[in-house]
Amino acid sequence: MANEQALTKALILDTAEQVFRRFGPDKTSVVDIAKVLQVSHGTLYRHFASKAALREAVTERWLNVSIAQPLQEIADRTDVQATERLRIWFDALISAKRKYALEDPEMFAMYTAVTLDAAEMIQFHVQGLIQQIAGIIEEGIQAQELKAGSPGAIANGIFMATSRFHHPAHASEWRVQAVDTDFADVWHVLLGGIQL
Amino acid sequence: MANEQALTKALILDTAEQVFRRFGPDKTSVVDIAKVLQVSHGTLYRHFASKAALREAVTERWLNVSIAQPLQEIADRTDVQATERLRIWFDALISAKRKYALEDPEMFAMYTAVTLDAAEMIQFHVQGLIQQIAGIIEEGIQAQELKAGSPGAIANGIFMATSRFHHPAHASEWRVQAVDTDFADVWHVLLGGIQL
Repeated sequence: MANEQALTKALILDTAEQVFRRFGPDKTSVVDIAKVLQVSHGTLYRHFASKAALREAVTERWLNVSIAQPLQEIADRTDVQATERLRIWFDALISAKRKYALEDPEMFAMYTAVTLDAAEMIQFHVQGLIQQIAGIIEEGIQAQELKAGSPGAIANGIFMATSRFHHPAHASEWRVQAVDTDFADVWHVLLGGIQL
Repeated sequence: MANEQALTKALILDTAEQVFRRFGPDKTSVVDIAKVLQVSHGTLYRHFASKAALREAVTERWLNVSIAQPLQEIADRTDVQATERLRIWFDALISAKRKYALEDPEMFAMYTAVTLDAAEMIQFHVQGLIQQIAGIIEEGIQAQELKAGSPGAIANGIFMATSRFHHPAHASEWRVQAVDTDFADVWHVLLGGIQL
């Protein structure tokens, strides 16, 4: 249906995401995606230089829409204090990751693979999340709710310290019941480290 | 060389470790190991029920000798206070993991695979490490150097919070230079959470 003029980035990404889900990212070729778009693979290559680039772009969009944007809304809330907002933020991050690992395994597997292959894009995504946390922490310091310190370093510390609960390399451990006790133990020490 | 009488567990594990290293755990068969031991594979199966059991036993011994025992010596030191001993303990754990990931990739790959397959053995190993930390923390609480609390829960919290730096699923990230800054940020928040 698509002609070259209608071939927007959004249409390519929508189609690529569908095809990746249907065939799996390993078995999908650029030709498969071009076929569904009814364009030549040469045309598609003018927009994305490789299958890896397409896979990365689809994952990047998914991370923004499914993870970063909903978390930004929590970070921006003005109705809850910093400490409680941090907890809501981490609970949302962790439950989103667990939900997608279980309910959207195709996309989650692609995201896990991209985490290893597209270090720069993932680094950018993670930095965005850490900035959200840093914003909450800065407000908490100003409100004399949290200990003084560098909001960026504190945010980086608590993000890295909770990796076990949101980094895709640990997805197989999220089904074990002990994971909730483990998070409670981690959170207790972290809170003690940041609260005034 | 070996006859059935001389076929000790240590000899089997020494030989299995050598053969796993030489051929890689995937390509090694129980028959390969039996051949080097000059026993029938039936004889070997009387000691270990499967290749998976052999692989698990070799990894378990390696974890004890290379990780748990040297760390126990640090945990038992009486010449340094709890806070400093905790840092020495974690530095030793993290540098041992990094060293083996780089310098003994065959054994490290086997350990990474076993981490997914032999959850019970790994769980037992991890619980042993957490008990070592809990011992240090208990002494620190008694010395009024650390905040009061459950030593086991605090130890579990700081072990889980440092997963990014010692869990084999993160080995590919240990080569990035930012990992040392990340650990410093995590350690700073954790120390703030446990020190009196």
